[in-house]
Amino acid sequence: MSIVVVGSVAFDDVTSPSGSVKNVLAGAATYFSLAASYFTQVRIVAVVGDDFGATEEKVFQDHHIDTRGIERANGKTFRWGGTYTDNLNEAKTDFTHLNVFENFQPQIPKEYEDADVLFLANIQPTLQANVRRKMNGVRLTGCDTMNYWITRTPKELAETLKLVDVLLINDTEAKMLANETNLPRAANKVLAMGPQALVIKHGEYGATIFFREGAFGIGHHPFRAPALPIEEVKDPTGAGDSFAGGFMGYVASQKELTREVLKRALFYGGVMGSFAVERFGPERLRSLTRDEIDARFQLFRELTHLE
Amino acid sequence: MSIVVVGSVAFDDVTSPSGSVKNVLAGAATYFSLAASYFTQVRIVAVVGDDFGATEEKVFQDHHIDTRGIERANGKTFRWGGTYTDNLNEAKTDFTHLNVFENFQPQIPKEYEDADVLFLANIQPTLQANVRRKMNGVRLTGCDTMNYWITRTPKELAETLKLVDVLLINDTEAKMLANETNLPRAANKVLAMGPQALVIKHGEYGATIFFREGAFGIGHHPFRAPALPIEEVKDPTGAGDSFAGGFMGYVASQKELTREVLKRALFYGGVMGSFAVERFGPERLRSLTRDEIDARFQLFRELTHLE
Repeated sequence: MSIVVVGSVAFDDVTSPSGSVKNVLAGAATYFSLAASYFTQVRIVAVVGDDFGATEEKVFQDHHIDTRGIERANGKTFRWGGTYTDNLNEAKTDFTHLNVFENFQPQIPKEYEDADVLFLANIQPTLQANVRRKMNGVRLTGCDTMNYWITRTPKELAETLKLVDVLLINDTEAKMLANETNLPRAANKVLAMGPQALVIKHGEYGATIFFREGAFGIGHHPFRAPALPIEEVKDPTGAGDSFAGGFMGYVASQKELTREVLKRALFYGGVMGSFAVERFGPERLRSLTRDEIDARFQLFRELTHLE
Repeated sequence: MSIVVVGSVAFDDVTSPSGSVKNVLAGAATYFSLAASYFTQVRIVAVVGDDFGATEEKVFQDHHIDTRGIERANGKTFRWGGTYTDNLNEAKTDFTHLNVFENFQPQIPKEYEDADVLFLANIQPTLQANVRRKMNGVRLTGCDTMNYWITRTPKELAETLKLVDVLLINDTEAKMLANETNLPRAANKVLAMGPQALVIKHGEYGATIFFREGAFGIGHHPFRAPALPIEEVKDPTGAGDSFAGGFMGYVASQKELTREVLKRALFYGGVMGSFAVERFGPERLRSLTRDEIDARFQLFRELTHLE
């Protein structure tokens, strides 16, 4: 079982009420890869610059992540700076230097082509669609997107949505994509655009998965998983990507794609998101054990399950 | 098993994207009583004016609610008008006529004094404290409050909080009361003010119950119950009071006050809140059956429980 992720690798400067860090290895594909690596073999496709050296490479190697898909381009790696104030749900962007990421054209190494599962992190929708078409052998494709693409490239995004099985976005993005303020109605509209399942992330309130009628089994009820009430969120950056990594990683580790598997995946998504925010950057994701992950999964269960 | 509720009875004018109604029998104590009546015997303490007649009386009688505590005063009943636009979480108040409610001095009938459980709906904190002191025989007291009292009468509210066992408020109120933006930290601060348990209502995302260390059993984990994703919310008025009615009503119906009982009560709270918003005013709460309630409880379980 293995998973291919296509997305950004970056260096972040982050300030939050708990402190600040500079030049931390980050980016959606980094958070995703590390989170997913506890469940399955991960293969990353990304682009970096000459400031990405052996130290950064080792972060991925320590997690047995295949880095043959990381392209080395001339120039600097994508850099982002953001500040969180009391509202930890939203960062103020201090700077965005796309650098080599600006002209990213994902190339899939031949050795990646037999992967089971594909995850298209948040990049330009046409690039996502191109990758998806090249990876026709996968049994499941997950996808992320953002407000920027929803408003700027709606047609391209619509094409991409026809090609993916599970879309993972947040409340605001779902409502914007569907042009609908009621969440379950928005979910139905998004499902009609293509995906078999839609995961809507509610930040500190958890996440809900909505299924298209008949997809992954019978029934038509959504399913909701909690988030952990955390007393100190140090750095919310990457929480959504870590959620996606836990969700998709667990799915990739399972033989069958049933609703029950997707429900458990929703819990594992919340678990990995909750670890990610405990430290700055992906630090916490680098030092986990599967026992810690399963203990927190059990805690999430206790947080929601009646006797 | 029986429960006494002290709070407002009102006539509402409500407009929402789904339509509008005028002069609907409403108020916190009405929603609470109707919701709780499916679980236990309810006794209401409130004040009404000459416009409250046999038709209104019958609404309570149909649910075997004891109305001997409803005082008839000269003048008109409390009237409120509100409009919901796309954001159904918040009403724009069109008018508030306190009328006879302005000088409400709750009188507890002698026949109510042997009740098991007490609920202090949202009224002035000193009135709440006075009622609580008169009802010293109850085994559990629940309490609601609102931003108005948190900012205007903090000292009086602090006195009341020392006398109650479970406080039921929403996210904004909890953060304001604790002067703290992080929810679990806010919860700990509120629990330090007196209550053994704190229920924080998250609207469409459900509710979380936080326990004081050692209260209602061992352990220190909170517990979260979902809300139902509803495609058409007709009228959100009274959702919180109906939640409280389901929660407290279920608690009153149980012999033991364990954490497991409070967890199930949190689910029943969500269930009754989800019914309330399906129709304008308390209409839906008037026509339920216990079978419908238990079926929805089961649906809430399926919405959150792994196999």
